[in-house]
Amino acid sequence: MPAEFHPRTKVTTESIFSRMSRLALQHGAINLGQGFPSNPPPGFLLEAARRALGRVDQYTPPPGLPALREALAEDLGVTPEQVIVTAGATEALSSLADSLYGEGDEVVMLEPYFDAYLPQTLMVGAKPVLVPMRLQPTDSGSPGGGWELDLEALEAAITPRSKVLLLNSPYNPTGSVFSREELEAIVALARRHDLWVISDEVYDELYFGAPPTPLRTLAPERVFTVGSAGKRLEATGWRIGWIVTPPGLAPEVAGMRQWSSFCSAAPLQAAVAEALPLARAEGFYAELRESYGRRKDLLAQGLRGMGLEVFEPQGTYFLTVRMPEIGAEVLVQEARVAIIPGSAFYASSPPPQGLYRFAFCKTADDIEQALERLERFLRVRG
Amino acid sequence: MPAEFHPRTKVTTESIFSRMSRLALQHGAINLGQGFPSNPPPGFLLEAARRALGRVDQYTPPPGLPALREALAEDLGVTPEQVIVTAGATEALSSLADSLYGEGDEVVMLEPYFDAYLPQTLMVGAKPVLVPMRLQPTDSGSPGGGWELDLEALEAAITPRSKVLLLNSPYNPTGSVFSREELEAIVALARRHDLWVISDEVYDELYFGAPPTPLRTLAPERVFTVGSAGKRLEATGWRIGWIVTPPGLAPEVAGMRQWSSFCSAAPLQAAVAEALPLARAEGFYAELRESYGRRKDLLAQGLRGMGLEVFEPQGTYFLTVRMPEIGAEVLVQEARVAIIPGSAFYASSPPPQGLYRFAFCKTADDIEQALERLERFLRVRG
Repeated sequence: MPAEFHPRTKVTTESIFSRMSRLALQHGAINLGQGFPSNPPPGFLLEAARRALGRVDQYTPPPGLPALREALAEDLGVTPEQVIVTAGATEALSSLADSLYGEGDEVVMLEPYFDAYLPQTLMVGAKPVLVPMRLQPTDSGSPGGGWELDLEALEAAITPRSKVLLLNSPYNPTGSVFSREELEAIVALARRHDLWVISDEVYDELYFGAPPTPLRTLAPERVFTVGSAGKRLEATGWRIGWIVTPPGLAPEVAGMRQWSSFCSAAPLQAAVAEALPLARAEGFYAELRESYGRRKDLLAQGLRGMGLEVFEPQGTYFLTVRMPEIGAEVLVQEARVAIIPGSAFYASSPPPQGLYRFAFCKTADDIEQALERLERFLRVRG
Repeated sequence: MPAEFHPRTKVTTESIFSRMSRLALQHGAINLGQGFPSNPPPGFLLEAARRALGRVDQYTPPPGLPALREALAEDLGVTPEQVIVTAGATEALSSLADSLYGEGDEVVMLEPYFDAYLPQTLMVGAKPVLVPMRLQPTDSGSPGGGWELDLEALEAAITPRSKVLLLNSPYNPTGSVFSREELEAIVALARRHDLWVISDEVYDELYFGAPPTPLRTLAPERVFTVGSAGKRLEATGWRIGWIVTPPGLAPEVAGMRQWSSFCSAAPLQAAVAEALPLARAEGFYAELRESYGRRKDLLAQGLRGMGLEVFEPQGTYFLTVRMPEIGAEVLVQEARVAIIPGSAFYASSPPPQGLYRFAFCKTADDIEQALERLERFLRVRG
């Protein structure tokens, strides 16, 4: 019997998304759990990839294919030198963890949190510090759809060991979007305490009200932005994400990124480079918002029709609902609908009871059928 | 000015391969440096990828697309449960670092070493312990083409802190292949000291003599194998690699891998799953060996014709040469040939003088032209 695994391996088990997708398959459930779209990616992206195959198949430089760094810089209003292409947003976050913090450091983040944040923080030896969002009744008129940022609690959580503020807006799983005023307050706080900020903006083009403010525009000297072609172009399995660093700070981060997967899939990088300006020019993101808006409304109305409390999303393709407290594993098995329990996004404070995250990046048919199944299940259950 | 980067970022700079490729481009040099083939990937692989696009574009399970895990298991003679698909061999090595060692642990490896090994060990806080290979004259009849494993030195380097033996065969950069006897001695040593073994076998199908012995067949309980579709199928930019774990030990490693890049590029995973049995059935690897063998001979003969000492490779697509001591940066600029200085693969002991690694995974034209340029340069220089 050889030596043991490193204790680091204890920080994580199978992700809740993988687990629910696996159970969905096993029980023939409709999968409104994991956030991947039912649609195939747009034709202009697929065509670009088919053309790139046989032409761009070998290593690219670790920070990315130059054409993709240029296309992203143009799209995001930064310089190509600030852009590092990664193997999805997961690797972007993991390379930033490698670059910015370790043993003895604290990473301040909000709760509910996106599930990767915790293990990635623990894996490099740092301590996650979770600050709960305030949950208001959905009819309170709160601009965050029931979720409110508690700025005082956020500041109170900061200690001399705090290195990084980790934020997510549009916010998975809440579906809320921070206002410019909230972001300005966050930036002031980061400046006061001299913190780095990681702004996870993978849903930057997926909003239902005013466009979100990119946090880096408010504090270019300290904000690292994380983005995702998978989320923007409905190709979550392509693993093309990116980091935008403050000016001059890319080399250190690129140095870390090169040893986690060296470079991202070359032909898919070339395809995304071609597709980014097309998506912009052809109004693809506006169409996407419209299409998701319709599916959001379909789901929200259906759930409200069952008398459930719906937290209206301002962005992302997720929606939170309050329901009777039923285990998600019971739901997948008996209602044959896979959704993510809100408790999966809580670690430090007791999770609010009966919250569930629904993904509406699925076909209208799937959404309707899931609603029917859920209604029948809740009715029979009484 | 925000907080500093984590000290971990100091362990690495731009990789020698990226740097030489960048300089090659800048000076119009022929690039026999970085190990990526001039050939496009085979048609059957490209066709499979074109068919997968629009069909397999969303997240796969983090351990890999089930079809690919099955195809790999079949190809490698293991079970699908032992296989974890990764974003290239770089991520395979990095996930194994996360899984197996950290602060206070030592990783014993041979010198010259493949360049990722050192920063990946240092990034997780462990200590690399380098054991120099013995360099014999190339006409000594040494089966390693001049490179000899020093088993005594290897055992002497092991301490109670040693956790892992990290090996590479076929061996980049030496081009040597460990014999079955050497591997048996290594396994005995690993068992005696209860060490894990990471066996980096990305060139497993690229050999010029007898097929190499997969190390896991000698010690299935402790060997983690690292492999690469990019190297096998001439698609180094696709980032499809794998880990084979000892039976029952995949979940911990998969747990680490899911937080570095979640999953590998989905359509390319599907394509590799289709291509692996075809490559085997159609004798693709045998053709590859033949084709690389011709280019190896072309390069070796050309270099010997200049009176240089050539270490005849038994595997990989690299060849080491002893030349007058000229900086690789001088060569790329003045001879306009990019090669990798042997010193890039040494850290603990003084690097042997005048060693250079040539990649022969390039077109015969490029190899011939590089030979001409080098001969002219050396002649003029006198």
